[in-house]
Amino acid sequence: MQPPPPHKPVPGKPADLLNLRVRYSETDQMGTFYNSRALEWFECGRTEWMRHRLGLSYAALEAQGVYLPLVEAHLEFRGGARYDDLLAVSTSAGLAGRARLRFDVQINHQSTGNPVVRGYTIHAFTDAARKPIRPPDWFADRMTKAAKSP
Amino acid sequence: MQPPPPHKPVPGKPADLLNLRVRYSETDQMGTFYNSRALEWFECGRTEWMRHRLGLSYAALEAQGVYLPLVEAHLEFRGGARYDDLLAVSTSAGLAGRARLRFDVQINHQSTGNPVVRGYTIHAFTDAARKPIRPPDWFADRMTKAAKSP
Amino acid sequence: MQPPPPHKPVPGKPADLLNLRVRYSETDQMGTFYNSRALEWFECGRTEWMRHRLGLSYAALEAQGVYLPLVEAHLEFRGGARYDDLLAVSTSAGLAGRARLRFDVQINHQSTGNPVVRGYTIHAFTDAARKPIRPPDWFADRMTKAAKSP
Amino acid sequence: MQPPPPHKPVPGKPADLLNLRVRYSETDQMGTFYNSRALEWFECGRTEWMRHRLGLSYAALEAQGVYLPLVEAHLEFRGGARYDDLLAVSTSAGLAGRARLRFDVQINHQSTGNPVVRGYTIHAFTDAARKPIRPPDWFADRMTKAAKSP
Repeated sequence: MQPPPPHKPVPGKPADLLNLRVRYSETDQMGTFYNSRALEWFECGRTEWMRHRLGLSYAALEAQGVYLPLVEAHLEFRGGARYDDLLAVSTSAGLAGRARLRFDVQINHQSTGNPVVRGYTIHAFTDAARKPIRPPDWFADRMTKAAKSP
Repeated sequence: MQPPPPHKPVPGKPADLLNLRVRYSETDQMGTFYNSRALEWFECGRTEWMRHRLGLSYAALEAQGVYLPLVEAHLEFRGGARYDDLLAVSTSAGLAGRARLRFDVQINHQSTGNPVVRGYTIHAFTDAARKPIRPPDWFADRMTKAAKSP
Repeated sequence: MQPPPPHKPVPGKPADLLNLRVRYSETDQMGTFYNSRALEWFECGRTEWMRHRLGLSYAALEAQGVYLPLVEAHLEFRGGARYDDLLAVSTSAGLAGRARLRFDVQINHQSTGNPVVRGYTIHAFTDAARKPIRPPDWFADRMTKAAKSP
Repeated sequence: MQPPPPHKPVPGKPADLLNLRVRYSETDQMGTFYNSRALEWFECGRTEWMRHRLGLSYAALEAQGVYLPLVEAHLEFRGGARYDDLLAVSTSAGLAGRARLRFDVQINHQSTGNPVVRGYTIHAFTDAARKPIRPPDWFADRMTKAAKSP
């Protein structure tokens, strides 16, 4: 699969902000956050993006039999973040092709705006048995509306 | 519930050894392992104890509809362990009362024997719907045999 | 060391509330949160307790050369919690003996009050080189004031 | 920075195999491993590659003041893996440009060879204060030798 170009700002795709603090459990002996935590913060960004932009929690989506397993992830580490630092997670999303969903995430320090990590995740649509499905029409409709709102 | 006395050596309950290395992801900015990792290492100890002593993986047990959710855990942190240190996980187990399973775990440095953490976990027996069940007879039989073997 | 009695409500020790959502990364294949995450949530509770009650972040405390490594932890798992559930973390704290700090934590569902997990952690005081120290006088003073405030 | 082409087999860069089992703590409610765990397994692969190919643990490298923080990571999720599944982690490495180190990792099921995840990580060289440095000559020499050995 040809990967979509990373981190190009997508016109009309509104971003959502989430604040979170670096937990002590997320640090490592280098004194910054351990790299895999970024993917866990990306998940927090997706969760809040869906709740606010689609008016639908991902928990509710799974309850309706639609799952969004990761198929690809890309991360660029741009600066450190220490325990208790307050971070701003900015997320945007859009359908990628016919059966993929893509989230772009930027994480910066809340106080200074200094960059921490950015990247994207690409998700398939599957049913509860992990069989690939097309995104339901109502879901695609909500995505289109979310992309148009300011 | 009255907690069982912690860490009393249980006669006739054979222990099993597992070696594992501290991962970088398991360290924190204090330079030792983050405290919650101990519970993850306890799980590794339980997994190998069941495989070796019961001749039954926990995965196989769940496949037969028997789950062992934690109801209680106790941890004593006795010394640090750094990234890449090789640890020895010593596990013993026994039925506790009629419907509880208890694992006692000690973790030491493999090279020096210096203590790292010890503690216990207590588990209920449930079915797939999380309803409490009695341990199946065949499971109790295997536990009795495991406790007798050297 | 004789463990302090677990979970006895301590008169005059005010509790602080923190809300957090269960992350997908914190679930396991049983469908509830993985047990070790509770210790990570306890840490979030301690962090906010110190910020609000002592007027001092734990990050600032470490910056002054005072560290609080865990020496003991006890957990009782009282009910499940699923991805995206909103939890209320209630924390209280007090000096335990001359050189120990104890946090008691209760985690409940925010909406129903149903219990999820409760327990305590006991911490030593050390310097940056992990040598045991007495709690600084100014710290003990703040703890005493925190215990008296409503 | 122009990212190196992903996953092209690099001639002469020998791979090393590590086996590991999926921990229960690494699963999520979808029943497979949570995505961020892949980066933790990649770390295990790097650690063993360095120990076996360079004759130098990463712990020893840090002790000599050379750190390898991640600057980029890419992951492709190719198949599920369940609790207790035995995985084979295959790692290769090489210098990328003058001051970058790149690890390519493939993770497959040990028994069937079915793919689980593949990807790469790119690392900077820094000193203990996180200032970028050139890789030490002795390190570059060992890398060259490692790349030539079968």
